[in-house]
This record gives sequence, structure tokens and C-alpha cells, in this order.
Amino acid sequence: MKVDGKPYRTIWVDHDGASVAIIDQTKLPRELAVASLATLDDAAAAIRDMQVRGAPLIGVTAAYGLALALSADPSDAVLTRAIALLEATRPTAVNLRAALERMRAALEPVAPSERAGMAWALAARLADEDVAQNRSIGQHGLSILEGLRKGGRKDRPIQIMTHCNAGWLATVDVGTALAPVYLAHDEGMPIHVWVSETRPRNQGAFLTAWELAKHGVPHTVIVDNAAGHLMQRGDVDVVIVGADRVTRVGDVANKIGTYLKALAARDCAVPFYVAVPSSTIDWTIDDGREIPIEERGADEVTHIARVRLVPENSGARNIGFDVTPARLITGLITERGICTPSRESLAKVFPTAGGAEGPRRVR
Amino acid sequence: MKVDGKPYRTIWVDHDGASVAIIDQTKLPRELAVASLATLDDAAAAIRDMQVRGAPLIGVTAAYGLALALSADPSDAVLTRAIALLEATRPTAVNLRAALERMRAALEPVAPSERAGMAWALAARLADEDVAQNRSIGQHGLSILEGLRKGGRKDRPIQIMTHCNAGWLATVDVGTALAPVYLAHDEGMPIHVWVSETRPRNQGAFLTAWELAKHGVPHTVIVDNAAGHLMQRGDVDVVIVGADRVTRVGDVANKIGTYLKALAARDCAVPFYVAVPSSTIDWTIDDGREIPIEERGADEVTHIARVRLVPENSGARNIGFDVTPARLITGLITERGICTPSRESLAKVFPTAGGAEGPRRVR
Repeated sequence: MKVDGKPYRTIWVDHDGASVAIIDQTKLPRELAVASLATLDDAAAAIRDMQVRGAPLIGVTAAYGLALALSADPSDAVLTRAIALLEATRPTAVNLRAALERMRAALEPVAPSERAGMAWALAARLADEDVAQNRSIGQHGLSILEGLRKGGRKDRPIQIMTHCNAGWLATVDVGTALAPVYLAHDEGMPIHVWVSETRPRNQGAFLTAWELAKHGVPHTVIVDNAAGHLMQRGDVDVVIVGADRVTRVGDVANKIGTYLKALAARDCAVPFYVAVPSSTIDWTIDDGREIPIEERGADEVTHIARVRLVPENSGARNIGFDVTPARLITGLITERGICTPSRESLAKVFPTAGGAEGPRRVR
Repeated sequence: MKVDGKPYRTIWVDHDGASVAIIDQTKLPRELAVASLATLDDAAAAIRDMQVRGAPLIGVTAAYGLALALSADPSDAVLTRAIALLEATRPTAVNLRAALERMRAALEPVAPSERAGMAWALAARLADEDVAQNRSIGQHGLSILEGLRKGGRKDRPIQIMTHCNAGWLATVDVGTALAPVYLAHDEGMPIHVWVSETRPRNQGAFLTAWELAKHGVPHTVIVDNAAGHLMQRGDVDVVIVGADRVTRVGDVANKIGTYLKALAARDCAVPFYVAVPSSTIDWTIDDGREIPIEERGADEVTHIARVRLVPENSGARNIGFDVTPARLITGLITERGICTPSRESLAKVFPTAGGAEGPRRVR
């Protein structure tokens, strides 16, 4: 997407052809800074420290991290060790694991001398596929917004609420939850986005607001607490969020607080959609409670901008994600279309992944 | 309650007998500062700028503000003007209006020369009544905690979740939602409080955590987003919050985000209680949607500790309260006992207020 008129992806191979450039998202919205990843450790640190974040982008960054590792040493030992290191950076998003599994399956049978070149090519393909899938998600999601436009109030823009950042910054480009938003806006459909700030790391206030502002999409930031009230008052037409992992029955792990928004949407009869590329679906799990939930340092809760908010004698917990049960979700917007969150519907849309060929086959 | 061993109320008549001292809550948790209110305008500003906040405390501060006004000029004109000024400081809490109505009813029939003395006496009585009511709320709430202790898990402390600050800082002393917490703790019952930070003004992180820490009650601060997840995982035994206004059918207006917690509690079968003195009940309204909801400056969302969080080009909304429908509430803990949130139950417990004598009679 464009930043001040200049097109950007969130990750690309640098002009030296041997290192990877990323937008350092810890610097946003204050500064658009580009960081260079020259080694496996750089890539792992970028994921761990959330210079890159968002389930699809984490997967692609890990793929490039493996390419960096194999450029230095293409041995079996490094292949195994690098995958283990990258897999351990963040626990919840399944895309990370899916991308690495796919890399492993392709690279293991190949002679070490060919591995580095193949790894770079495969990482680039994963990046391009992410963009293509997100465009497709955008098209499917756009049909939902067009339906709301036709069936709903004509006296105001379509009111879309989102949580955290599932925009182009969470992917290589285009975004998942925000893909339909950008398409609708570019088509001239009047829309307005409610951006929940998404404590504790404020990805809504810092990242979603930034990318919407740069693209010129009308939006308003709210505290997470206000989501239910706005839905009660009829100020929200649809909620669209991204996901870090979707089970095969449609339970969705996403940024902490998603579940509360889904409850309010159900209570207020507001449709609640989750936009996900199929790489986010974990075909090995039914119950969302089996998804490992990341818990990060309490300092993200107790401090902001290096200012301590919480008294010295008070502890804090910092749970990163929660699980929204399938029953609260209207639909999953995938690159192959919109499906209801159920095992049957998911298996029908992705027969080779969830069907007879067994789990964990990544397209 | 005690701060470092020294007993405090949140508001008291200063040693000169002519001005009012308050704990300046905008300075907490960094500093325990006492501010002096010498005039009506001081009192109105203290409420407006949230040096004092919390529905019960706002009511008592307004009563003292009227006493300050009448000490300067006890005329009918000042009585009317001072009440109008104080009523306009904050819209949602009904205690403010109730306290001023009660002052007006007592002072209007009296000769101007007697008004100031009577106003001071009445304000002091309101303050003492608040403390007595809160002690009573604490006793009734304690029975709930004792029931949970008997019926529940013995391998861990009772897990209580609260929102915003409905502790002693929100009242003259003792608190509403935290009254049972303090009683239970002082009795030696093992308890632990989940404190949601309560964006945007962080009253949970700043005030509730501070007063619990000062009293030695075990507690943990979480972001508001984490409330649902903790309930899903069985980590919460009961939710107790305060209220700014309760309709006569039991709909509860309280700090923005309360509704989301009530939805999660219902979804996870966690009991959800609202602790309220009867002065918080508005006998003139059925539907919670009729309650005026304060919206404050967007800068409380966009900035924290003077640091701007949100991009310059992004707007923000700052809605202060939301309404939790009676159907999501397990019980109202009042000074007369616990009642189900319904017109019948409320009218039975408060027959003179909600019953035949009609609305708006304040005890």
C-alpha cells in the first residue's frame, strides 16, 4: 500500500540481494523506519520483539529468516536448528509453523548446495501468495460490505469496527480484515472504521490508525471498553477482525479482547466476520482452548511510553490472545470465499487441506 | 481506610471549619495530595476535572460545594444558581442530582440566615450516611463471597474481578464494589482481585490498584481486553462493579466497558453483581438507554501522560459510560440487601422510594 504516495510492502529483499528489509513497526506511528535483517538471529529477534507482527507477516519473515540461515550454512543441522529457533519466537499464530513446515518439506530432500537459492525463491513465493490471497479476501469481504450498503442505512457511511491490526502492516501487503475496507474505499463506497486501540500494545491506535490515515480512510479511535456501547447504540454495521489461528471447527484465536467484541456483536445482532488466509487454519485442532496463548511481559501493561501506569506494589498479567468460539462468528472470509465457521463448511472450501488427505497439508 | 497506617476519608471539612479538603485523585498513584476547596467554583471544578470522582463521592462533594456557596451568600438566587452549576458538572451519575435535590428540599424553606449552617450539617450527614451505607453493602456482599468460599474451590483464593474504581476512593469511605473485598480480607478470607485498567482514564490501574496495595489486598492489573479470556479459563469466581445510575428495572449505567464484562460473565456462567447505595437508583427511568451518557475529550484517548498515542490525522471518541441491561446482572448489592435487578424486587426493598409515594423521593 502507499505511504505518502510511495508504494511499500512490509518486507522485501534488500537491494544487496542478501539481506531482508522490513518496516520496523515498533517505530510507528511516529516514524516510518526500515530495518535490515542480515542473519537468522536478526529475523528471529524481529519477530520476537514485534518489529514485524501479524500472523501472515510473521510466517513470511520466518521464511526469509530461514533463507538467511541457509545462505550462511546450508547444512541439515542448521536447517533443523533454524526452524526450531524461528518456531519458538511466538506461540499463537499458526502461519509461522505453516510457513516453516512448507519450507522444511521443500528443502530437506534437496542437496545443501541448492538450499539457499531455493529458500529465497520459496520465501518470495510465500510473500507473493500472501498478497494474492489478501486481494482475494478483499474481494469476498467487499461483497459483504456491498450487501450491507444495499440493505442498510443510506444516510451514513458503512460503519466497520476492527480490533488490533489486521491491515497491510500485519501481512506482506493489502491486509486481511482491512482488505475489504481498502477495496471499498478505493471504489468510492462511503465507509468509516472504528479502530479499537487494542491495549496493551495499542496496535489499533498505533498501526491501524496510521495505515488508514495514510490511505485516507475515515476512521475514529476508541478505547477497547467502548466497543459494546457503540454496538448497543446502532453505530456499528459489521465487525471484521483478523486471526492468529483458526481451528478446523472455526474457533478463532486472535488478539486479546476479540472475544468481548464478538459477545457484544452477538448481543446486538451485529454481524461478526473473521478474515483469514487458509494458512491461518490449524487443521489439527478442534477446540480453541487447545491453542497455546502467548503471555508477554507485564511491563506492557504496567508501563506506556516508559511511564509506569500501575503502582509499584501492584502486579500485572499480559495475556496476548483470546479465543472466540465459532458460535459467535458470522463467517470466515477466506481467499476462497466466505464460509460459516464449522468443520463441514471449512472442509468443503478447503478439501485438500482439511479433507481426506489429512491434516497439516499446506497448499 | 488507611494509607500507610493513617486513616483517611476522601473528603472532610478542613481544620479551619470553612473549607473542604479532598484527596486530589488526579495525582494518584504517584502522590497522595490533599487539595483545598474554598469556594463553590473550587468544588465544581474538582468534580468536573475529576479530582474527585465516583458516583457517591461526587454527590457528597456537590453537597459541600453548596455549603461553600451559601457561606458566601445564602440568598435564594445563589441557592438556585449553585445547584444548577453543580448539577451540570457531570451528567451520568444520579447521586449528584439526588444529593442536590435533598439539599434543595431542606434549604429552600429555611430563612437565608440559617442556610449555611444547615447546609454544612446536611453535607456532613450525607457523608456519614454514605459510609454507613457502604459498610452495609460490604456486609451483604460478604455473604456472597462466603457462599462462593463454601461452594467453590478451596485450593486458591476467591477470584474477584472489578472494573474502574468503586473502592473507598469512589465514596467517602469503605467503597461500594470493594466494600465486601475489604471486609473479606480483614476477616482473613483468602481473596485475589483482578483489576482491569479501565481505559481511557485508567482508574483501575491508577486508583483501585493503589488502594488495594495500600490495604494489602492481593491483586493483579490486567488490560480491559483480558477480562473475557480470564473468565473463559475459569480464573474468575465473581465480578463486582459499582454503578453511576441504576434504573428502576435494574439497568445499570457504569464506566464504559462494564457491559462487555457482563456479557463475558453471562457467557461463562460467572455471577455478576453491582454494588450500589440506594442513592444511585433513578426511580424515574425504566430503560437504561434513557440515561445520559457522558462523552469526554478525545485527548483522554489520544494521549497518555502527555504522550500522543494516536497519529495526528486520526480522530478519537471518548464515551464515558455504558449501560448493562438488567438481564445480564445477577444481583444488586444495596445497603438493604441483595436484590435481583427488576422493578418488583427493587420496589420491595425500597418501598418508600420506588413504591406508592412516587418517584424521586430520596431517603
